[in-house]
Amino acid sequence: MKQSQLFTRTIKELPKDETSFNAQALIRAGFIDKTAAGVYSFLPLGWRVINKLKNIVITEMEAIEGQEINMPSLTSRENWQATGRWDTLDVLFKTSGLDEKEYALNPTHEEVVTPLAKKFINSYRELPLAVFQIQNKFRNEKRAKSGLIRGREFLMKDLYSFHANQADLDHYYDRVILAYQNIFRRIGLEENTYLTYASGGSFSKYSHEFQVLTEAGEDIIYVCDNCKMAVNKEIIAEQNICPQCGRQDLREEKAVEAGNIFKLGTNYSDPFDLKFQDKDGEKKPVIMGCYGLGISRLMGAVVEVCHDEKGIIWPASIAPFKVHLLSLNENEAAEKIYQDLLKEGIDVLYDDRELQAGEKFVDADLIGCPYRVVVSQKTLAAGKLELKQRSNTESQLMTAKELIEKLR
Amino acid sequence: MKQSQLFTRTIKELPKDETSFNAQALIRAGFIDKTAAGVYSFLPLGWRVINKLKNIVITEMEAIEGQEINMPSLTSRENWQATGRWDTLDVLFKTSGLDEKEYALNPTHEEVVTPLAKKFINSYRELPLAVFQIQNKFRNEKRAKSGLIRGREFLMKDLYSFHANQADLDHYYDRVILAYQNIFRRIGLEENTYLTYASGGSFSKYSHEFQVLTEAGEDIIYVCDNCKMAVNKEIIAEQNICPQCGRQDLREEKAVEAGNIFKLGTNYSDPFDLKFQDKDGEKKPVIMGCYGLGISRLMGAVVEVCHDEKGIIWPASIAPFKVHLLSLNENEAAEKIYQDLLKEGIDVLYDDRELQAGEKFVDADLIGCPYRVVVSQKTLAAGKLELKQRSNTESQLMTAKELIEKLR
Repeated sequence: MKQSQLFTRTIKELPKDETSFNAQALIRAGFIDKTAAGVYSFLPLGWRVINKLKNIVITEMEAIEGQEINMPSLTSRENWQATGRWDTLDVLFKTSGLDEKEYALNPTHEEVVTPLAKKFINSYRELPLAVFQIQNKFRNEKRAKSGLIRGREFLMKDLYSFHANQADLDHYYDRVILAYQNIFRRIGLEENTYLTYASGGSFSKYSHEFQVLTEAGEDIIYVCDNCKMAVNKEIIAEQNICPQCGRQDLREEKAVEAGNIFKLGTNYSDPFDLKFQDKDGEKKPVIMGCYGLGISRLMGAVVEVCHDEKGIIWPASIAPFKVHLLSLNENEAAEKIYQDLLKEGIDVLYDDRELQAGEKFVDADLIGCPYRVVVSQKTLAAGKLELKQRSNTESQLMTAKELIEKLR
Repeated sequence: MKQSQLFTRTIKELPKDETSFNAQALIRAGFIDKTAAGVYSFLPLGWRVINKLKNIVITEMEAIEGQEINMPSLTSRENWQATGRWDTLDVLFKTSGLDEKEYALNPTHEEVVTPLAKKFINSYRELPLAVFQIQNKFRNEKRAKSGLIRGREFLMKDLYSFHANQADLDHYYDRVILAYQNIFRRIGLEENTYLTYASGGSFSKYSHEFQVLTEAGEDIIYVCDNCKMAVNKEIIAEQNICPQCGRQDLREEKAVEAGNIFKLGTNYSDPFDLKFQDKDGEKKPVIMGCYGLGISRLMGAVVEVCHDEKGIIWPASIAPFKVHLLSLNENEAAEKIYQDLLKEGIDVLYDDRELQAGEKFVDADLIGCPYRVVVSQKTLAAGKLELKQRSNTESQLMTAKELIEKLR
């Protein structure tokens, strides 16, 4: 797309109360806007990142037989009373209807998906099943000062699985771990992400988190450098050695919890009486698992991990555009390259604006597309273009043909 | 996908209070589930329809230079007070935060998009601009008894445009009408949809609606059979002849308002002081337009228009699957056809379940994919398969090769 037509510009003024690096960088570069504390709009560049993230997550969820659905945000008080969470979950936003009913704005969907599954699960023959959604969640946070990392409204992927027995849940749970690891690898966070033992709540001994190391994190974890596993501070008293290799000298780190997966057991099937008929004809409660992944939070975590003092350095798989093409007063030649790149199916942000070269370079570094291509009088005199990777300081001169070969 | 693995089954029991045909059919066929009155979950089949609809709408909005963004559902009381609508808009759901602030759940986004645009619009050089989103909306309706046609929570496309002068808005407004007409044509509702003169509210003399004729509609319109235009009952007193040809004998019809477009003028730029610097150096208010289209409502309208007594008849462009393949105890041969169709990129729902033929036929008619393919002992004996269109009563026998040629 042509940058002269882009809805946003990079901006210098930041909201006064915005202290997190991820939100500061994303606001300055025009990816997001702050509507209220912990409530953001995604602008054209930011929405492109979210869509690329969503597509990766959808592919990986479908690869483990997840079926995509979409559950609502509003849910009646009765659903939340059935599990007792209407009164105990302090982050629940509540609202009243003109129908004289009370509703919650869901921060999670066990209270919706369990009665839903009850309508379709009768027999062991229908199990296992797994459904997921990528949907807005609401949490009535007292404070929200970490940008996309702790929102009052945020985008989340939540997967729910339904099993006839514990062994089947255990098996599926391990497959979800692998799918999550694929996701973190595909978005370039493999090295920074630790499968972390955490509290299982009232459901089971442990749950697992996917913790991304960054100083911006609100969690403290203890990392084992042997096995790339970690333990969340909340359970370090009971679990103070590496659960994998038994190593004792774990390293304390700050991290962002990007995902959290739980073996729910019958904790939600019991209150909603979600049962199936087993092979022996007996009615048994369905065994459930739930698997969360913060989509907007992941975007924030990527920015915290992948940046330098000049701006964001997007991993190629979720960059808003692969190429940022800068015309330094050479729009005719640049337009031709732009069209050639589009023809090859390469997505390009083309800076065709009437601005100083310096301003264009500053914007390109701030926005952080993986490849920067410069067309200037100097490069054209040599019959060439300049290509530079955002993650690299060296640039190369090459012909248009070589450029396309390289980027294709 | 294999129907034996689908999350949903067709169901016979309906929620007692569900009186609308569209919701009844969609619930019975497993496309949606009712979470509360006017609040629905989209299940795998239904979410596929929504995604196909969304893709058509996104393409048409991008063709008129709309840039996709995503604004939040929660918005502070201050934004809604700026326009006075905090107190006057009775359908506003409200909620309180632990930060001691009050929030609205947006039923529309002028109160968000206008201050947002203010951050990026300075000069006439940046205009015109248009942004859109496909996003959840909330309306605190007293009653919600028309299924997807009137939701308390619903999916909507809303486009907002920003202009330097009225002529530019007028020109863009006409382009939006054409884009909407493309959408209705692409989803098979061209013949049933009328561009309808409606009240312009406090902004302008008229707005325009896109009304889909159906007995399930909550609106009354007066249709001119010459010009395929209509007038909404709400303004028939002031506008009782066809606005196009002057014809007087208009035909009264019930219809669903699937879209509504408005020339907002400076109605929202004034309270938010959204101005731009014109060529002459003068600061002037930005002229705005807004253009809504109900995505989930359209899905409901399609079902009201496209069905028979056996079930839904999806237009091909938004059908959950193009082909419903039924194996009548011939899963080996059917599996081969299934794989061959998938290889051709044709989306297929394959009924591989152990059920009676009669039940499979009933389900296929209820779900309503455009093409039904039957593999049975009888068809295989003739070395063939049976193909039938959902919209047609006649079936044809053909070889697998002919079938693929036909469906490709």
